Amino acid sequence: MMKLAAIKGRNRVIIERVTPELDGGRFFIKSVPQETIPVKADIFCDGHDKTAARLLYKHQSENKWSEVPMRLINNDRWQAEFIAQKEGFYHYTIEAWVDHLASWEHEITLKIRDAQHVSSELLVGANLLEKAAAHAPQEDKKAILEVVKIFRDESRYDDAVVNAISERLVKWIDLYPIRENVSRYHELKLWVDRPKAGFSTWYSMFPRSASKEPGQHGTFRDVIDLLPRIQRMGFDVLYLTPIHPIGNQFRKGKNNNVLCQPGEPGVPYGIGSELGGHDAIHPELGTLEDFKALIEACKAHGMEIAMDLAIQCSPDHPWAKEHPEWFKIRPDGTIQYAENPPKKYQDIYPINFETEAWQSLWEELKRIIFLWAEWGVRIIRVDNPHTKAFAFWEWVIAETKQTYPDMLFLAEAFTRPKVMQQLAKGGYSQSYTYFTWRNTKAELTEYMTELTQEEMRYYFRPNFWPNTHDINPPFLQTGHEPNFLIRYFLAATLSSNYGIFGPTFEYMVHEAFPGKEEYWNSEKYEIKHWDWEQTNKLTYVITQVNRARKENVALQHTNNITFCEVYDEQLMAYLKIQGDNQILCVVNLDGYNRRGHMIKIPIQKIDKAGWEEYIVHDLLTDSKYVWKGELNYVELDPYFLPFHLFRIEEVVSKEVGV
Amino acid sequence: MMKLAAIKGRNRVIIERVTPELDGGRFFIKSVPQETIPVKADIFCDGHDKTAARLLYKHQSENKWSEVPMRLINNDRWQAEFIAQKEGFYHYTIEAWVDHLASWEHEITLKIRDAQHVSSELLVGANLLEKAAAHAPQEDKKAILEVVKIFRDESRYDDAVVNAISERLVKWIDLYPIRENVSRYHELKLWVDRPKAGFSTWYSMFPRSASKEPGQHGTFRDVIDLLPRIQRMGFDVLYLTPIHPIGNQFRKGKNNNVLCQPGEPGVPYGIGSELGGHDAIHPELGTLEDFKALIEACKAHGMEIAMDLAIQCSPDHPWAKEHPEWFKIRPDGTIQYAENPPKKYQDIYPINFETEAWQSLWEELKRIIFLWAEWGVRIIRVDNPHTKAFAFWEWVIAETKQTYPDMLFLAEAFTRPKVMQQLAKGGYSQSYTYFTWRNTKAELTEYMTELTQEEMRYYFRPNFWPNTHDINPPFLQTGHEPNFLIRYFLAATLSSNYGIFGPTFEYMVHEAFPGKEEYWNSEKYEIKHWDWEQTNKLTYVITQVNRARKENVALQHTNNITFCEVYDEQLMAYLKIQGDNQILCVVNLDGYNRRGHMIKIPIQKIDKAGWEEYIVHDLLTDSKYVWKGELNYVELDPYFLPFHLFRIEEVVSKEVGV
Repeated sequence: MMKLAAIKGRNRVIIERVTPELDGGRFFIKSVPQETIPVKADIFCDGHDKTAARLLYKHQSENKWSEVPMRLINNDRWQAEFIAQKEGFYHYTIEAWVDHLASWEHEITLKIRDAQHVSSELLVGANLLEKAAAHAPQEDKKAILEVVKIFRDESRYDDAVVNAISERLVKWIDLYPIRENVSRYHELKLWVDRPKAGFSTWYSMFPRSASKEPGQHGTFRDVIDLLPRIQRMGFDVLYLTPIHPIGNQFRKGKNNNVLCQPGEPGVPYGIGSELGGHDAIHPELGTLEDFKALIEACKAHGMEIAMDLAIQCSPDHPWAKEHPEWFKIRPDGTIQYAENPPKKYQDIYPINFETEAWQSLWEELKRIIFLWAEWGVRIIRVDNPHTKAFAFWEWVIAETKQTYPDMLFLAEAFTRPKVMQQLAKGGYSQSYTYFTWRNTKAELTEYMTELTQEEMRYYFRPNFWPNTHDINPPFLQTGHEPNFLIRYFLAATLSSNYGIFGPTFEYMVHEAFPGKEEYWNSEKYEIKHWDWEQTNKLTYVITQVNRARKENVALQHTNNITFCEVYDEQLMAYLKIQGDNQILCVVNLDGYNRRGHMIKIPIQKIDKAGWEEYIVHDLLTDSKYVWKGELNYVELDPYFLPFHLFRIEEVVSKEVGV
Repeated sequence: MMKLAAIKGRNRVIIERVTPELDGGRFFIKSVPQETIPVKADIFCDGHDKTAARLLYKHQSENKWSEVPMRLINNDRWQAEFIAQKEGFYHYTIEAWVDHLASWEHEITLKIRDAQHVSSELLVGANLLEKAAAHAPQEDKKAILEVVKIFRDESRYDDAVVNAISERLVKWIDLYPIRENVSRYHELKLWVDRPKAGFSTWYSMFPRSASKEPGQHGTFRDVIDLLPRIQRMGFDVLYLTPIHPIGNQFRKGKNNNVLCQPGEPGVPYGIGSELGGHDAIHPELGTLEDFKALIEACKAHGMEIAMDLAIQCSPDHPWAKEHPEWFKIRPDGTIQYAENPPKKYQDIYPINFETEAWQSLWEELKRIIFLWAEWGVRIIRVDNPHTKAFAFWEWVIAETKQTYPDMLFLAEAFTRPKVMQQLAKGGYSQSYTYFTWRNTKAELTEYMTELTQEEMRYYFRPNFWPNTHDINPPFLQTGHEPNFLIRYFLAATLSSNYGIFGPTFEYMVHEAFPGKEEYWNSEKYEIKHWDWEQTNKLTYVITQVNRARKENVALQHTNNITFCEVYDEQLMAYLKIQGDNQILCVVNLDGYNRRGHMIKIPIQKIDKAGWEEYIVHDLLTDSKYVWKGELNYVELDPYFLPFHLFRIEEVVSKEVGV
């Protein structure tokens, strides 16, 4: 039997289907400061009474809830918004109740219109208003109680009727609700990251290839020398592959050769040697002091370092001796190396996250992250997070953010959709995506819709990469310059977070390992020497696009996209709007042919009528065109530039000669 | 800080997005015995290990869980089914874990195919198999341990390899999983109603109109005399409007006249007089003994009585004197009558569910229901449940079903969608629907899809009514016989639960109160006299359709519907399939014109190939047609019959002369 005492029998309002809410509140949603959080819910009660609802929210540092009245959209769906100003956790929830005063107002108005005598109703109203007055500030309280008096005074009936249907009474009802038998939803959480989580521009490189001298092992000091160049191109995150000592046993040679020649540098992901593990620095790159100097130099150039966290070991890693319990042990007592049967990777020992000693393992990994944080690192790119336990990430990210709330984590998971989603739910600030393999208009539109218009928008922040040091996609294996331009432009304008694998991309390196999506002579296995002074069309475009991203807030968001119809399957167009800043990107996905067609602008989105003119101003070429209404013509020659990066501007004069 | 001790750090498998699950498990789903419950979930773990999952379920009377292995559908979505055999509550949930033995089997197979030496792997496998053997029954245990011995015996290497990739090993892995670090979803609930909840055929009437003598007040004994006729037509639920004493104060006259003439019988919904309230019986209908006799007579005719629960009072109801605290009190101390401003209903006192005395109110209402149950009533049709608190219904239905698990509740709520859904979630066995106003093919298809293909299918059992004593829909106000036939056929074949408002429907009464969807000279306000012997086309069709419903299990379900394309917007066709029973309904929604067109049968659903012939056998006319493949021609003349009720049958001989 259900005990009546355990039931809130007088609470008549139901609150359901709240969005955003992840898995019943199990996970928090994410934003950056100043982002508007729209909260919707089904809210209704039995019968015909009016309902009132408030969205409640507060920052973790606050005791008092802030409130926003919710408004009915339609079909019992309500909405309100709040803007999270501060970084850190916010709590939010909804309260709703039967609004007896509003119901009373509705009914007495109908009766007065019907010329009914409403003495009795006025007395009911007087009692309700008296309750409402209790919540009103002094001045309004006085005014309300004056009305109460009139309602109760039979001799002032006409006056009472006028007051009963007055504007100010409606306003009071709204301002000073009688909150009795309030239904309250469970509390939900929002994590507000620092702005970089929402807008970042990544340049990735192997620091050992930074030397200006051919054949020299690059150092942190060499990287410092490159910073002005990378800054000039507009990047603000410099992501370095692992900087730890590299193992010797089973070290891999050029092109992943299992036989390593003497003097070959090895793979930075074969972490750990007698010189140390994840808490040590590869001596050929420099000292810890050098690394800290690099971190400082980055700051001076408006950039940050992103460290690479690859939780795996070479056979020479100190953990292999000190903590064999963190690995799988083979029947012969040796540690189990990595396998993807029938392939063997004897240079890598994977960690066994199912170990009985998981607690000491987790603590050690946390120690590493905290150590890096002490060095000054505030961004961590995690290598293959999807091969480590979800529970570990959720814990270690939460622990880290409690001490270092400004720490950001990028998940390098290229795996099944639900696994990638789960990592993001578990706390990752940003995630690599399938963008690298989405080439056609249909693919890109569908994928962007999933990322930005559905539930993922609340927890999964995409970071788009046209290539990485591991991935040389077929579209770029062509080496065709327009293809590089197209893929670059899409990454940098579709997503507010994007990155490139440094010189390899800029200089359009494209030779693939036969039959694979990897680079031939991959930098993973050897030291490269680059002509760091070289510029080309790509570096020019990168510089211009990154400047436009800095100057146009619409490009600093990802979820603000609207696709436009273009009647050519290779021409793609999308609007990005943030406040007054309206950006229109048009891309010719065909890198080999000039394409021209009509494009249909959703003009209500840019606040234009069908007859109105406006200017589309190409921020890359500085050309301006006068457009009018919905349908306008675009033509793009990939051998010139396969895209327009338009800002939509007002026609202020006849400056363009129409 | 998150305490590690509070975390299940070794549980690597995630279970998410389980269906069916209502509001995070807040509400139970529903079925009838023998119904298959498909349970789906996203199940995945980090890395590349294999996962195993079991659906667990048990009846409330059982201690032990039954288990069904779940299978991967695609994209980390898994599924299994269970069949709830018994009535009452079932619990169900999911367990999942990393299947190390399956991972091992997968990997060793690849290595053996690659001709690698696998001694070490065999030893690993031996340890795993030993664990698995612990769960195996004696015979298999012996066999498994024999294999373990072979795996550990270097001298029997070839034998071991053969065993490692043997069929029986794969079977053992499936049968005797090693369940360690098991992730378990929270428990969900299913309520299994008795079969009548899923398949019922309602006949509604005012018992006071049951007399054979004009001008006589009908009695329960008169109703008993009508039972053979109602049974013959195929109905199994006889729903009676309220049978309690009717109030005198403000009693309504013919056609809702506020001035009642002496001798007018009043509205049965104005419940209560000095003779009693909801626990008393209107003396003109007979005694409690007569009513119990009716209940027994119904049983003898394969029928059941449905009582009408209208929680409201006439001013003469005993509660008005004894429990004024259950009503709203006006400033002058009188009880607030019902209003829909500017309209007043002074003959009705609504109950105030926000009363501080809600606990005694709830207990009294429960007492009424339990009293009726003691009289033998097992079906209650609730009048306007949406004007009473949701929490009350959830409580009182749960309380009732604990003592009377066979009690069924039908919600007569015609209101906003979410309110109707909430009542169903709260425990109602069946619900009235918008069917009454869904006339076009598009409307019907969309509504049926919402009811049967989406979440509602798990908790909202529709009951379709072409008319009710309150609703005379415009489509029937025409009085056009084919229209009555069409609406009847749709109700009886789209939904396994349907009802009609008795003689008014049969005899095509259609005159409306001017400008309203109500009957002129409505039976609510007066006693009618019917010629109970009269039959017509409608009564013939009702009898035939109800017979077909009894003989064809496909018509005893609602969610088993598939719409067929027909290239005419007034022709509608749908398949209903249950096991081997395949029913095809074709309806001409145009009651005035003969319509003919091609209909496209989704032949994979009826297990036919494009070249195969099959028979469509009209169960109403006994005509048979030989059809072939997808596209076939149908023509329907509304003046003959505006529908086919086909059973799809095999061609067994050349009986139809092709």
